[in-house]
Amino acid sequence: MPLLRIDVIEGRSEAELNELLDAIHCAMLAAFKVPERDRYQIVHEHSASDMRIEDTGLDIPRTDRIVIVHVTTRPHTQLEKQNFYELLCRELVERCGMKASDIVVSITQNADEDWSFGYGRAQFITGELSSQKPTDNVSGPSSSE
Amino acid sequence: MPLLRIDVIEGRSEAELNELLDAIHCAMLAAFKVPERDRYQIVHEHSASDMRIEDTGLDIPRTDRIVIVHVTTRPHTQLEKQNFYELLCRELVERCGMKASDIVVSITQNADEDWSFGYGRAQFITGELSSQKPTDNVSGPSSSE
Amino acid sequence: MPLLRIDVIEGRSEAELNELLDAIHCAMLAAFKVPERDRYQIVHEHSASDMRIEDTGLDIPRTDRIVIVHVTTRPHTQLEKQNFYELLCRELVERCGMKASDIVVSITQNADEDWSFGYGRAQFITGELSSQKPTDNVSGPSSSE
Repeated sequence: MPLLRIDVIEGRSEAELNELLDAIHCAMLAAFKVPERDRYQIVHEHSASDMRIEDTGLDIPRTDRIVIVHVTTRPHTQLEKQNFYELLCRELVERCGMKASDIVVSITQNADEDWSFGYGRAQFITGELSSQKPTDNVSGPSSSE
Repeated sequence: MPLLRIDVIEGRSEAELNELLDAIHCAMLAAFKVPERDRYQIVHEHSASDMRIEDTGLDIPRTDRIVIVHVTTRPHTQLEKQNFYELLCRELVERCGMKASDIVVSITQNADEDWSFGYGRAQFITGELSSQKPTDNVSGPSSSE
Repeated sequence: MPLLRIDVIEGRSEAELNELLDAIHCAMLAAFKVPERDRYQIVHEHSASDMRIEDTGLDIPRTDRIVIVHVTTRPHTQLEKQNFYELLCRELVERCGMKASDIVVSITQNADEDWSFGYGRAQFITGELSSQKPTDNVSGPSSSE
């Protein structure tokens, strides 16, 4: 269900983009515990002049390999989000050779009733998909390492 | 007011895209009861490799005719949203020859003060547009059939 | 932190787009009081047929110079938002020669924990960035005039 818009500067090969999307999905699976095929990724490729990304004064250098991951999702806990940021960063650095300084994420939350995955039905409302509430009392962090 | 981002894979003719947008607007008018000219549609055309859309394990087949409709709107009731999913699906199947399995929707809500339609004014706040609250006690479903 | 998607119809020169982005950022700085380098702007250039923008019945004429500014941000007050609409409009008219009738804005709010600006960290949560609450009792409007 999370719908991801992934903004990059043009220049990556199709193989590189595929690896990028796979790495992002892997972090999503581990952090948000969504089903394997809960994958809705849309890439926007831009000219360099169409992305003006600075750093809020944090002294974070940016390169033309920058990736903005804009997530729309049902609610998740702060812990799950922080896990996602960490895992995403690790995946993109290790698998895609990215710099950790080139990864920006923004999350927007919506609700169960805000999703239809096909056939004109709201699958979280009809019960075809289970409507889980986020829980803060999970016993530990992701055990994927 | 709803702002719609409509993501498709490139390949539709301009006439097909126009029909698609008209069909989506028609469903929006019927389900959300917005004014006729409350139309703010933006199409993003992507290469096939730039959209990775799966099915959350629901066994929904996807084709390269898939459409993602990403709506930003003031609040609507669950019933209105479910009406929108149904009507949208019916319109796109009947008018555009689409498969019901190729239609994905995600909604994000904001508020009256979050919109300016021109002239630097917030028309829902100034009173130029009426600020209606969604109502759950509407007496019946859409009577368009 | 505000992440801005700026949708335009193709045809502006790179210099015109740069001026547009600078003008938008200037309005953002003045209205939302964000740091100078709090700049995250993404431009989407579309064919004219890919943007269907009407006027909710307000009799607002649109041209092919129309700009849609779609903002994702931590919460701001109604006053700050109205200031943003006004200042944005003034900047785009004065600096870019735009018509005030060609400027549409939509805002979506999220929270401190919804942002990571790099290194896999949530900088508003770690304390690297200060987490300010919006205040409605600010003593006066923007003093930039």
